[in-house]
Amino acid sequence: MLSTRHLLGIKDLTEKDIHTIFETADSFKEVINRPIKKVPSLRDVTIANVFFENSTRTKLSFELAEKRLSADVINFSASGSSVKKGETLLDTVNNILSMKVDMIVMRHSFPGAPHFLSKHINANIVNAGDGTHEHPTQALLDTFSIRERLGDVAGKKVVIVGDILHSRVALSNIFALQKLGAEVMVCGPNTLIPKYIDQLGVKVENDIRKALKWCDVANILRIQMERQLVKNFPSTREYSMYYGVNKELIDSLDKEIVIMHPGPINRGVEITTDVADSEQAIILDQVENGVAVRMAVLYLLAGR
Amino acid sequence: MLSTRHLLGIKDLTEKDIHTIFETADSFKEVINRPIKKVPSLRDVTIANVFFENSTRTKLSFELAEKRLSADVINFSASGSSVKKGETLLDTVNNILSMKVDMIVMRHSFPGAPHFLSKHINANIVNAGDGTHEHPTQALLDTFSIRERLGDVAGKKVVIVGDILHSRVALSNIFALQKLGAEVMVCGPNTLIPKYIDQLGVKVENDIRKALKWCDVANILRIQMERQLVKNFPSTREYSMYYGVNKELIDSLDKEIVIMHPGPINRGVEITTDVADSEQAIILDQVENGVAVRMAVLYLLAGR
Amino acid sequence: MLSTRHLLGIKDLTEKDIHTIFETADSFKEVINRPIKKVPSLRDVTIANVFFENSTRTKLSFELAEKRLSADVINFSASGSSVKKGETLLDTVNNILSMKVDMIVMRHSFPGAPHFLSKHINANIVNAGDGTHEHPTQALLDTFSIRERLGDVAGKKVVIVGDILHSRVALSNIFALQKLGAEVMVCGPNTLIPKYIDQLGVKVENDIRKALKWCDVANILRIQMERQLVKNFPSTREYSMYYGVNKELIDSLDKEIVIMHPGPINRGVEITTDVADSEQAIILDQVENGVAVRMAVLYLLAGR
Repeated sequence: MLSTRHLLGIKDLTEKDIHTIFETADSFKEVINRPIKKVPSLRDVTIANVFFENSTRTKLSFELAEKRLSADVINFSASGSSVKKGETLLDTVNNILSMKVDMIVMRHSFPGAPHFLSKHINANIVNAGDGTHEHPTQALLDTFSIRERLGDVAGKKVVIVGDILHSRVALSNIFALQKLGAEVMVCGPNTLIPKYIDQLGVKVENDIRKALKWCDVANILRIQMERQLVKNFPSTREYSMYYGVNKELIDSLDKEIVIMHPGPINRGVEITTDVADSEQAIILDQVENGVAVRMAVLYLLAGR
Repeated sequence: MLSTRHLLGIKDLTEKDIHTIFETADSFKEVINRPIKKVPSLRDVTIANVFFENSTRTKLSFELAEKRLSADVINFSASGSSVKKGETLLDTVNNILSMKVDMIVMRHSFPGAPHFLSKHINANIVNAGDGTHEHPTQALLDTFSIRERLGDVAGKKVVIVGDILHSRVALSNIFALQKLGAEVMVCGPNTLIPKYIDQLGVKVENDIRKALKWCDVANILRIQMERQLVKNFPSTREYSMYYGVNKELIDSLDKEIVIMHPGPINRGVEITTDVADSEQAIILDQVENGVAVRMAVLYLLAGR
Repeated sequence: MLSTRHLLGIKDLTEKDIHTIFETADSFKEVINRPIKKVPSLRDVTIANVFFENSTRTKLSFELAEKRLSADVINFSASGSSVKKGETLLDTVNNILSMKVDMIVMRHSFPGAPHFLSKHINANIVNAGDGTHEHPTQALLDTFSIRERLGDVAGKKVVIVGDILHSRVALSNIFALQKLGAEVMVCGPNTLIPKYIDQLGVKVENDIRKALKWCDVANILRIQMERQLVKNFPSTREYSMYYGVNKELIDSLDKEIVIMHPGPINRGVEITTDVADSEQAIILDQVENGVAVRMAVLYLLAGR
């Protein structure tokens, strides 16, 4: 059992919660690698995927996780919906819940939207990304993948490279890595590193070469072109020249580091193809583990 | 059993049909409140939700009703479909039926579209809203909710407040309420009341204060901003000032009336937050009952 | 068993493969005409419908085929997806496969896209249309429907009428008909007949009257208004005047020919209503057979 009814952010989880999720995910990873990839665990549970922001892979991963748990799944997306008609978030969700839905998996562009909801409704809420705030299941699958590759997360040195300022993946990863006893560094141009970074107890490094030399694991964030609304955002070309992770950089290290990426990859921008497709990269393991970890979260929140 | 193979409009139902639907919905309401919210009743039935007009809550409610009856569900929406390629309505539906679909739940912007179809196809049709004409399942869930709160519909005084002229909800409700023996009044500015209202045998009242004083139940329609294409349509502000239902109005009555709304609510426009969230309001009951009533309709039309 | 792990095009199938698919489809056609239209055959198989191009009927037909085989189905469409974020096709598909998907049904605007993928991934691929190249399941359902109506395809004379140049349906039909021993003619204005037609061993005829006189079966293609980007494309009116199949043309023949159309129909353009709705037309049989044929393809590729 978890110490919480919702998964709003990694911030609210205990270290024990994370280990419980990992151990449950271990079993579900076996399940999804069997010929019959399903268990009847949640066949009396109805889950609504409520996405106010477009998403492909996260939504697909949740949907598969839900179906493999035999839950009833309904999808609600903001486009063409009552949201456009001026309905409040709470009214939208209360309507869905009145149709006897047990869990809400929710993505919203507003930081804190799932936290707000959790104070007003009874169903379990899983945050599938709230603006630039948290993306807890991504951090869980990332740390689960490190544990899988390196045996443990504790004591490992992990650098998160890229646009830390606008990344919910970065923030959730920092919390998860610290709770599990890893050392965390962020690396990127100063314009993409938040001012509050010092309060998070992570190292900051502007030189990608030094960052990679220091780390055991490099989690390379996607440069989200669609978020480049801030001034001082580097051009793709500049970014790639100074922070793109390429074979030459990797070969210059005297050890083998683990390469991660939350996807979708901009090949040739934040990471080159030879690095992304190398044996060191666990990018597709992350995707596979995503389904198992999400199954574990849903299963545990349902109280099974 | 119902006296009809289709649910095209309330106009075609007998009073007995409506009672049969209510009694069946009573059982299904128990079902959706059990831990296992499903029955295997329609597991050999394939239902297509064919929505030529956007919809969120109605479609979701039908989808849940279908899944809880264990039907196979396929969704067809007009966006990006053959409809855009100039195919006729009948060809579109005949194509879907050739894939061995048993029932069609259909929303269309053209009044009478489901009636037209019913003359040319064999499958059962459920009208999920045809233009400004009828929205029969909404009227069934509304009257079911009145019956649930007040014990019976017969003899009750119900006022429908708002844009009667453009509302399929209003028209279907008038038919259902009259068949069940309720007295019906409509209330709104004259520009939003249809000229044929006298032929329907309902009272007309322009003063909201008098209307609320008269009634046992007030069904407050959404002011549909998106339909404001007619001249003489009041501004939101004007509407709210003269017809918005607020606490002061409600407190001025010497009895407690039941407050209904088909959703989505424009809080502060046609209804204020304190009224919408009061104990008198059964707005979320309506949503819950919508699933049970739709299950009943689908089940009965399938001949079970 | 088929000689191939994928259905990329009719070109790669043997005659025996096609007969195996037909015989399997015979059984599935019985299944979808039973009260319980489902078999548990693929209940351990997860299929992703990956549509990079809009589609309604093909996608619906595949979805129904998959559900009737009890497969787990997930839908991925390009709109709002990572594809827009610049992800490569291979990365998109590898991500989906990492979530433990067994088969990919894929539509893509780029000719050869499924062939490219088949060289890089392990899952079975079914081509649901690749640009102007092939649409193999359409050709299989078309030839299956001829066999159903006329007993056999071998020895029959089939004319394909319309825009041969831009039609994947035409190309796949030519391959399928030839492998099954039919004689094939194409008929249309020279501007809509590809230059490479001679290498395909089919007859060419510009006069619709002569073409219909020659044939046993006329497969009348949709004039795709949305593809009219080439110069020299006839106007709808011109096309209809010279190539539209109407009652007068049909009545002038001294025999009864079979009329086919892949849909959606432009009534009054390439075919008139009286012909489309006549007893000679097997247009809706084609749609029904589409589900059975796709069930057969999926079942056989899964190795059952």
